[in-house]
Amino acid sequence: MNTQDTIIALATPSGSGAIAVIRLSGSNAISIASSYFKSIHNKKLSNQKTHTIHLGNIIDGERVIDEVLISLFKNPQSYTGEDVVEISCHGSLYIQQEIMQLFVSNGCRIADPGEFTLRAFLNGKLDLSQAEAVADLIASDSKASHQIAMQQMRGGFSNEIENLRQDLLNFASLIELELDFSEEDVEFANRDDFQKLVTKISTVLKALIDSFAFGNVLKNGIPVAIIGEPNVGKSTLLNTLLNEEKAIVSSIAGTTRDAIEDELIIEGVAYRFIDTAGIRDTTDEIESIGIKKTFEKTAQAQLIIYLFDASIIRSRHDGEITELLNLIKHEIEKVSIKFPDKKMLIIANKSDLLSEKEMDQIENQIPNILFLSAKENEGIHELKDQLTELSNIGVLSNNQTIVSNSRHFAILNKALIEIKNVQFGIDNSISSDLIAIDIRQALLYLGEITGAVTNEDLLGNIFANFCIGK
Amino acid sequence: MNTQDTIIALATPSGSGAIAVIRLSGSNAISIASSYFKSIHNKKLSNQKTHTIHLGNIIDGERVIDEVLISLFKNPQSYTGEDVVEISCHGSLYIQQEIMQLFVSNGCRIADPGEFTLRAFLNGKLDLSQAEAVADLIASDSKASHQIAMQQMRGGFSNEIENLRQDLLNFASLIELELDFSEEDVEFANRDDFQKLVTKISTVLKALIDSFAFGNVLKNGIPVAIIGEPNVGKSTLLNTLLNEEKAIVSSIAGTTRDAIEDELIIEGVAYRFIDTAGIRDTTDEIESIGIKKTFEKTAQAQLIIYLFDASIIRSRHDGEITELLNLIKHEIEKVSIKFPDKKMLIIANKSDLLSEKEMDQIENQIPNILFLSAKENEGIHELKDQLTELSNIGVLSNNQTIVSNSRHFAILNKALIEIKNVQFGIDNSISSDLIAIDIRQALLYLGEITGAVTNEDLLGNIFANFCIGK
Repeated sequence: MNTQDTIIALATPSGSGAIAVIRLSGSNAISIASSYFKSIHNKKLSNQKTHTIHLGNIIDGERVIDEVLISLFKNPQSYTGEDVVEISCHGSLYIQQEIMQLFVSNGCRIADPGEFTLRAFLNGKLDLSQAEAVADLIASDSKASHQIAMQQMRGGFSNEIENLRQDLLNFASLIELELDFSEEDVEFANRDDFQKLVTKISTVLKALIDSFAFGNVLKNGIPVAIIGEPNVGKSTLLNTLLNEEKAIVSSIAGTTRDAIEDELIIEGVAYRFIDTAGIRDTTDEIESIGIKKTFEKTAQAQLIIYLFDASIIRSRHDGEITELLNLIKHEIEKVSIKFPDKKMLIIANKSDLLSEKEMDQIENQIPNILFLSAKENEGIHELKDQLTELSNIGVLSNNQTIVSNSRHFAILNKALIEIKNVQFGIDNSISSDLIAIDIRQALLYLGEITGAVTNEDLLGNIFANFCIGK
Repeated sequence: MNTQDTIIALATPSGSGAIAVIRLSGSNAISIASSYFKSIHNKKLSNQKTHTIHLGNIIDGERVIDEVLISLFKNPQSYTGEDVVEISCHGSLYIQQEIMQLFVSNGCRIADPGEFTLRAFLNGKLDLSQAEAVADLIASDSKASHQIAMQQMRGGFSNEIENLRQDLLNFASLIELELDFSEEDVEFANRDDFQKLVTKISTVLKALIDSFAFGNVLKNGIPVAIIGEPNVGKSTLLNTLLNEEKAIVSSIAGTTRDAIEDELIIEGVAYRFIDTAGIRDTTDEIESIGIKKTFEKTAQAQLIIYLFDASIIRSRHDGEITELLNLIKHEIEKVSIKFPDKKMLIIANKSDLLSEKEMDQIENQIPNILFLSAKENEGIHELKDQLTELSNIGVLSNNQTIVSNSRHFAILNKALIEIKNVQFGIDNSISSDLIAIDIRQALLYLGEITGAVTNEDLLGNIFANFCIGK
């Protein structure tokens, strides 16, 4: 990684807009920009204060490329911690290209993905988990994913880890010191305090690890499988849900996002609906290929919506109704036996075709049921409420720290194993030099989360997933 | 048009990028932004200097929406001439939407297309033709269209018009004054000077009107019709031209533009190639439907490339060659008779299959011919040179004022008619009160270009074509 040169990238989305922002960072950013910028007030950029804006022209010899605003951020008071120049130019692709070319031909290098944030990390402006949160923040598409990224970017999570790591580091030093004086049999590290710290770290790590299952689905959307026999209204339900959301989104001018098929956001949480083929003919061998696939897909879900067509009991006599409902009940039971850990929502569709009495009959036999009519858009609001309740997003509001990054999850698990080894060592009075090895390993893992311990490969992997210009 | 309220819009392209810029303008821009912005240094936005940048959080009550940079521009030192706040936020669509919603719910109105520039015009920051140039600049996709827009935005053209209008206005006042004293038969306006001014205005208007044919094609691309019999290599030629250009464009990382089928930029000028069906069987009635269509399309072109397959003369004896070339020559003549005003480039394709001697034979019979092989990519460079020469873009470099806007062209024509009427009036000693009417009309038209004279409909039409956020 060459971090000496001055890098340049387009920071705004590619495409045409009113303006575009081109960002330069590096020790020569200001001097390079000065050479091709003529302030309308004849001001010299390098003499200007940080955090100031200057109107002028980008010029290449005699030729004026554009009238621009230049924002100046002086080292270390910038995003990267280096000198940064941001050029707001007119949004024409031609102009963006001309300005980029001008600077690339005169001492700037096109930035790698995430290189600005990498430099921010290397210059101590952000720790590693905060840097990772920047990418999550840019990718956030719902209130929940945004909140998790925001929390992480503001350092809540890594501060906690870093404080524990510092405490552990202090004990490690004391224990290593004991080893130096091993012949004298002294104890610099108070074993009670050490015991307490290890327990505390263990508790925190467990809580963070546990939060991942939740954080991960909040970040990527909660997978929901809608299952049921063919023609019970699965697609109609999905369309009804999606259309309503689309209408809400499109009421905000200029911000319509590309609709992600089958993803919708309810109360700030994204749900990814998983298409399943209808489960046809329940008396068939349940492991028939089609149904096997449906169950495979259902296995990926966090929530299951079981949908049936309630109108099949219409105008039947009571004996027939009981029999039909028993078949449905039997099928629901099979699903819940198959997936005992998944929360399931049972929905009676086409309720608009039923009488009050028929609905009562259903509810008597299959309790905790939600009636709706996907076609008539009835009961959809209640369905959303139940989804919100089941996905338990309440935790979000009490500011609990949530891990949503797979890398952190993996390292936290590794750290926990080492901490458990330390615990085991203390409990079994294992010699300090062996405990010290486990502590060192735990410190290493904790450090990898915040970036206190790092290497080029790790950084390369993390920042390769960033967008260019950040 | 309500120009009192504070407007808001996304200024950067929609989509995901590292950052997005949201722009507020209006008398309440700073106070509204202040209410939802918490500076990390606890600075109050309204106490800050213009052209300064402030780091902090956009907050909605307790909730942090994003960490942003706010750029402050204080009335009148801003693009619009009003107080302007620019918010650089993270590029997530969700965040953009949240910030927009927050401000729209709290006193801002989503800006109409071009409303920022409209306000700049209404506040005297730009004249009307400069404002129009802003939209052209954003749409510019070649060196030529960029240069024309830049020239117009920097006011070269409208300054000239405005100066002439002022001079004419002075004479108009004097002449109107004479009318007040008509019984005394005085002459306040020096007729010689007036004559000179009218001649000067007439010359300038004519030059500007003449420049439009050129400016318009430079702005929109020079239409070029490639015609010729089927299978002479028209599509191969086009592909060869396009592919080479595409390669050049794509060598600049991050700036690849959507390829416009059949448009290519040579030496900074855009050419739009017009597809024509091959002209088959020249002995047929020339007005057959297919050929009629080809000629209709050719009529829209500025340049014609006439392509023929030179390899048809291969291994023929001299008599046959003469006969074949005569047929081609005859066809070329028909085209040039049909389109006497259009510049034509005659190209012998498949030259790679010919001997030196055969090429000489062709050149003897059809002079001013360009040999190339579209398939082998030979002679393409020479073709581009000839296109550049024929399109006469040299004028661009000597800073001649060029009109590229249809509205200006139409008004300049109207103004010229009135000026000619004035001229006629002077030449024929028509009474001052009649001349005054023509002068007033000419003043009106000239004023409509710079926006000195304007009305709501005119402004509505002009700014409706802008993008939102500019």
